[in-house]
Amino acid sequence: RLPSSCFLQGILERLDAGEIVIGDGGFVFALEKRGYVKAGPWTPEATVEHPEAVRQLHREFLRAGSNVLQTFTFYASEDKLENRGNYVAEKISCHKVNEAACDIAREVANEGDALVAGGVSQTPSYLSCKDKTEVKAAFQKQLEVFMKKNVDFLIAEYFEHVEEAVWAVEVLKESGKPVAATMCIGPEGDMHGVPPGQCAVQLVKAGASIVGVNCHFDPETSIETVRLMKEGLQAAKLKAHLMCQPLAFHTPDCGKQGFIDLPEFPFGLEPRIATRWDIQKYARKAYDLGIRFIGGCCGFEPYHIRAIAEELAPERGFLPEASEKHGSWGDNLSMHTKPWVRARARKEYWENLKPASGRPYCPCMSKPDGWGVTKGAKELMQQKEATTEQQLKELFQKKKF
Amino acid sequence: RLPSSCFLQGILERLDAGEIVIGDGGFVFALEKRGYVKAGPWTPEATVEHPEAVRQLHREFLRAGSNVLQTFTFYASEDKLENRGNYVAEKISCHKVNEAACDIAREVANEGDALVAGGVSQTPSYLSCKDKTEVKAAFQKQLEVFMKKNVDFLIAEYFEHVEEAVWAVEVLKESGKPVAATMCIGPEGDMHGVPPGQCAVQLVKAGASIVGVNCHFDPETSIETVRLMKEGLQAAKLKAHLMCQPLAFHTPDCGKQGFIDLPEFPFGLEPRIATRWDIQKYARKAYDLGIRFIGGCCGFEPYHIRAIAEELAPERGFLPEASEKHGSWGDNLSMHTKPWVRARARKEYWENLKPASGRPYCPCMSKPDGWGVTKGAKELMQQKEATTEQQLKELFQKKKF
Amino acid sequence: RLPSSCFLQGILERLDAGEIVIGDGGFVFALEKRGYVKAGPWTPEATVEHPEAVRQLHREFLRAGSNVLQTFTFYASEDKLENRGNYVAEKISCHKVNEAACDIAREVANEGDALVAGGVSQTPSYLSCKDKTEVKAAFQKQLEVFMKKNVDFLIAEYFEHVEEAVWAVEVLKESGKPVAATMCIGPEGDMHGVPPGQCAVQLVKAGASIVGVNCHFDPETSIETVRLMKEGLQAAKLKAHLMCQPLAFHTPDCGKQGFIDLPEFPFGLEPRIATRWDIQKYARKAYDLGIRFIGGCCGFEPYHIRAIAEELAPERGFLPEASEKHGSWGDNLSMHTKPWVRARARKEYWENLKPASGRPYCPCMSKPDGWGVTKGAKELMQQKEATTEQQLKELFQKKKF
Amino acid sequence: RLPSSCFLQGILERLDAGEIVIGDGGFVFALEKRGYVKAGPWTPEATVEHPEAVRQLHREFLRAGSNVLQTFTFYASEDKLENRGNYVAEKISCHKVNEAACDIAREVANEGDALVAGGVSQTPSYLSCKDKTEVKAAFQKQLEVFMKKNVDFLIAEYFEHVEEAVWAVEVLKESGKPVAATMCIGPEGDMHGVPPGQCAVQLVKAGASIVGVNCHFDPETSIETVRLMKEGLQAAKLKAHLMCQPLAFHTPDCGKQGFIDLPEFPFGLEPRIATRWDIQKYARKAYDLGIRFIGGCCGFEPYHIRAIAEELAPERGFLPEASEKHGSWGDNLSMHTKPWVRARARKEYWENLKPASGRPYCPCMSKPDGWGVTKGAKELMQQKEATTEQQLKELFQKKKF
Repeated sequence: RLPSSCFLQGILERLDAGEIVIGDGGFVFALEKRGYVKAGPWTPEATVEHPEAVRQLHREFLRAGSNVLQTFTFYASEDKLENRGNYVAEKISCHKVNEAACDIAREVANEGDALVAGGVSQTPSYLSCKDKTEVKAAFQKQLEVFMKKNVDFLIAEYFEHVEEAVWAVEVLKESGKPVAATMCIGPEGDMHGVPPGQCAVQLVKAGASIVGVNCHFDPETSIETVRLMKEGLQAAKLKAHLMCQPLAFHTPDCGKQGFIDLPEFPFGLEPRIATRWDIQKYARKAYDLGIRFIGGCCGFEPYHIRAIAEELAPERGFLPEASEKHGSWGDNLSMHTKPWVRARARKEYWENLKPASGRPYCPCMSKPDGWGVTKGAKELMQQKEATTEQQLKELFQKKKF
Repeated sequence: RLPSSCFLQGILERLDAGEIVIGDGGFVFALEKRGYVKAGPWTPEATVEHPEAVRQLHREFLRAGSNVLQTFTFYASEDKLENRGNYVAEKISCHKVNEAACDIAREVANEGDALVAGGVSQTPSYLSCKDKTEVKAAFQKQLEVFMKKNVDFLIAEYFEHVEEAVWAVEVLKESGKPVAATMCIGPEGDMHGVPPGQCAVQLVKAGASIVGVNCHFDPETSIETVRLMKEGLQAAKLKAHLMCQPLAFHTPDCGKQGFIDLPEFPFGLEPRIATRWDIQKYARKAYDLGIRFIGGCCGFEPYHIRAIAEELAPERGFLPEASEKHGSWGDNLSMHTKPWVRARARKEYWENLKPASGRPYCPCMSKPDGWGVTKGAKELMQQKEATTEQQLKELFQKKKF
Repeated sequence: RLPSSCFLQGILERLDAGEIVIGDGGFVFALEKRGYVKAGPWTPEATVEHPEAVRQLHREFLRAGSNVLQTFTFYASEDKLENRGNYVAEKISCHKVNEAACDIAREVANEGDALVAGGVSQTPSYLSCKDKTEVKAAFQKQLEVFMKKNVDFLIAEYFEHVEEAVWAVEVLKESGKPVAATMCIGPEGDMHGVPPGQCAVQLVKAGASIVGVNCHFDPETSIETVRLMKEGLQAAKLKAHLMCQPLAFHTPDCGKQGFIDLPEFPFGLEPRIATRWDIQKYARKAYDLGIRFIGGCCGFEPYHIRAIAEELAPERGFLPEASEKHGSWGDNLSMHTKPWVRARARKEYWENLKPASGRPYCPCMSKPDGWGVTKGAKELMQQKEATTEQQLKELFQKKKF
Repeated sequence: RLPSSCFLQGILERLDAGEIVIGDGGFVFALEKRGYVKAGPWTPEATVEHPEAVRQLHREFLRAGSNVLQTFTFYASEDKLENRGNYVAEKISCHKVNEAACDIAREVANEGDALVAGGVSQTPSYLSCKDKTEVKAAFQKQLEVFMKKNVDFLIAEYFEHVEEAVWAVEVLKESGKPVAATMCIGPEGDMHGVPPGQCAVQLVKAGASIVGVNCHFDPETSIETVRLMKEGLQAAKLKAHLMCQPLAFHTPDCGKQGFIDLPEFPFGLEPRIATRWDIQKYARKAYDLGIRFIGGCCGFEPYHIRAIAEELAPERGFLPEASEKHGSWGDNLSMHTKPWVRARARKEYWENLKPASGRPYCPCMSKPDGWGVTKGAKELMQQKEATTEQQLKELFQKKKF
């Protein structure tokens, strides 16, 4: 266990010094499987309803090596919670959800001196074409809690439109705290067609010190997107730290909108889950590209984060706490009862394994939904010609499935 | 939430009354991913080192619908802990591990009035050919803790040899508490070639009131094995309740020893993970065969247990607590932002989905290990001609990989 | 090229002497792809309509190493040709088809001194429950042509019911010529449930000197069926030569009726086609089991037959003519333009290749048809409760697909 | 059968009139499987050695609907035949091979009034960096035969470098006969990096009236490449007819050099073979893009060509001769013995079938060779720094596999 003093520095001090910062994993997917988040709305009222479950997941990521604990405030803007909140037994205010998220994250961060990052994400207000003031007000409301609770820095994440992401950065920037910004886009760019390089440029100009991608695409695709962002920044002679928090699902077959459009989303993604070895490869590739804030999003469980920390242990000089219960490249199998399992206790074995699915009646890839009937609906939505959810719903109901 | 009085009855009263009893999921795999158990030794010292993590997992299973919480005492016999314990920083006694496991299980069981089952499993003593007295002494030692902590009933589980399982049942039976017994075998029978039907007969004759299988094979294969057990009992005119706690991994390609021999074990099994819909099918098939104690083993996460509870909700008349955060057959997706995802909110969609692996360079099935060089070692081990671990190790080292 | 004298001996002299006899491949599938046979009826009127096409295929098999040329008289019984013949522009008599088939086979056989085998196969008369006399009359009619044309020996092949096969052998046996008999069954036995071992015994008792299987299953499954036949004969203390002519399609997923029931039959079987290396493995396994009449059926193209001849060249001491255009295990690639292709000119490369399908949206295995709605129809048919085609059709039309 | 007069017009008259012209399939692959061509050298000495085999294949393509029979003169330039000819028992001159090819093609073309196209392809002279004069001389030599034999038009095909293709067109153009030119490239362009659009422009400027692609890539990829060619021509305001003769193998995973670099090339490609239904989809897509010369290359068997003719029968108004033995979309299965097979006699069935590979231990895609060690060799070769085969060979031998 590293002495606390190592972690006292802020996010920018660390990145400026060339350190590797390990992010955390995906809360909504992990807590959905544990029974505390509802797929569909994906809102974080668990911070109030079941703080012990949220705390435990933070703690597992901390043990696994996370240097940053993000407040579990995904989709916790007031408009989102109101919109979706009707299924929550007792009405829980946006304010309470965000406050509880900050308290829990700080409590666990202190167990290991990790940094706490307050996070905002895309809003229904933007999607339903509310104006800039209204959208910014939603971010402002969350920011107030983050300031009161004195988080260490801020992350604007999971934006499909760079315009909204820029608005978020502008709001967060006013706090004076460092701002990171990630978009959930692939190499084709944002939903309005803005390419990754240009997205990065706009975010940095708006005030982000760290830019990158999160969610929606697998590690390989996400690294490619960050590479394009890096190129864009270089061409514009701008400097920023790079960040990557991809899915822990293999998605070579997804389209511009990412894994949401895959037929398996969200309840049939199991065969796509990355192994720890896949994640070690990802960590290495991310590092080689110059990314220094390396974490995960949906699908990342604590052992995936540990895989990042183990892969980069030579560079960092230490292992995370949870490596007490893990051997490098499976070497703990040397203690297995059966000798032929002991023979798997070596790097080349796991590095080269092509894991079978055990599903001979299933294919390897899927066609994303909406290549057929839904295409019109999607385009309209992206062009914002369908200005309200209601309009979209009507439009959609006219199509048959 | 069901009134407490429903759960006050013991395991046999409930099964005798025709109730469905839902078991819990697999602790060693779930806690390995969370960073608290080491693959290879797979021992449960986390009950002492990190009780909060064990408690949280119990709680998640309880919320998901488990009526039985098994003490996390897998591989917690003294001989196993001593054998493997050297990696644990501070020496933790077998006694402490078992006591802590009972305390945690009881604490959580009381939150929902579930039953606590004390569990013993196969021992290194048997594998290294210690005599009956010595092997029984190991079980006796654990039983003492279970009696002191007053668990509700006992489970002898994860036995590859019916002989050892019978010894375990004989020890547990002396306690006067109901005894369940499961073997980690497939349709081919135990490692000495005793077929499932005969295993079941021997276990019931030894005193087990509930028999079945756990671990090592996927749900489909496990149900087939229980079917063979049922046939054996019928032929012998014996009565017992049936129990099934399979893997949540697809393993159509494994051999007699189950998933241990698959090249993906234990760090590349992700593509084989069952979806919640696979588990609903399993629950239905198990129920249709007459199995009434239905749970899971390695790979079963809380949402898999919830899937059993949801599938059998019509028969049981109620849903588990965690279904507050889940809709039947994905109907919560009707609240998703994107209309084409809302279109997935229906049973036929998920029931018929053939989920893609996203891994086009990987095959669908694997050849179990040891079809080649290790075959001799395995046979020797099974014939017990290699009487000690040391001998086996030497034998094995002569072979090349 | 081997001197003619080697081939002057009859089929039994050669097998009795321990020689390996190589059969030919499948005519209906090969000629369907070439445009001369209609899938569905699968009848051989091409012998009259396009003798040059039939002749060329015989010649290719001869060059590839076939020692036996079967007359292209599959489904050429009078009842079959009449039943299906209406699509043939000009009415062609059963007699003419069979005569032309004999003439063409003999003409080509003389080019290389191969043996000519006259073949009969299952009849519509049997399937529609005509009596023994009527069914035998159909075989008798074909036999008359074979005797007039003086074929070297006779083959009764492609029988799903051992009863009909026995009748065929009884008819053919009266000719005094050696009789071979193969069934298109798998390890589960014939359509009435007679196991392979018992089928073999009945066929030998009826007069067959050579028994085995053809068609319907892949090489691996077919060898297993012949193994069961061998065991049956040994148990009954009967002697006969063994013969195997499987599909050149991989069918690990087919049920009792073989590849007919796979959803891909007959127009989507391409991804299942065996490579030449698969066939070399088959030839070796067949040889090792003691099978000495080794050929192929549907899907076997000339290069597959050549693969048998090349694999067994060490035992036989010579290569077939077509090996002039082929190198052992790809060694002709050493003359390829591109160096990285030249690197594939070695046995280990091809032996270990796991060929990709190039179809990431397709699965690896299929569920045979008729596991659902058609099951009843099948069972009725097999039980002959549906005594006529018409009844079956009506029965079938009541079911929905 | 259509009256002869329909076919009397030349290739350009037909294309100018908007007719669909159907090409033939791949000779080297089809004849390799039949035992007459050696993989590796892939030279066409069979025209002299076994004219009956070449004639039969031409005839099958004619019956299947081909309107153009290409002389089997692939790789029949003098430099190629000399280079590779040493394995041919008796030395056969380039002149004789080309003459025989013309005679056979004409003989069969007359059976159905198809056009004969004399074909030249890439030369070893170019690859080993001989100068323009020398390379052109090789084409000139073959052209002399084509003129003497009075072929109907000329095709320059299978060029990886547009420079060499232009030289070939320049030579052929001098004859006064119409010239078609195809390259074996994908969307990434030729081996020197010239994009498809620019290749097309250069070929048309050199005198080609028809341009397109052949070989190396699957139908889908090839159509995309022709689309890029079409765009290039439109941008340059040039007019030409479009032509497409792709592989009948699925190759979504191949790199810039096409299927040659796939590990399965050339002896493990079976699982990739296109079904007739795949080809019908290809024919429709090609037609929809405006391609009017539609044929195939390696892997195309007669039934694949028939599938083109059947798909476009509505536009053309007639079916090919071989459709006598084929029903539209499987409707001949309505005559099958088994009722559940009769149920497959419909378009939707075959159109939607996702055919299984029957190979659960194999992957769906492969990594092209030479991503690793051979990369250097390839680059050198492409940069022509390795000027001779000998140099390349030495270079290559230094690398390990």
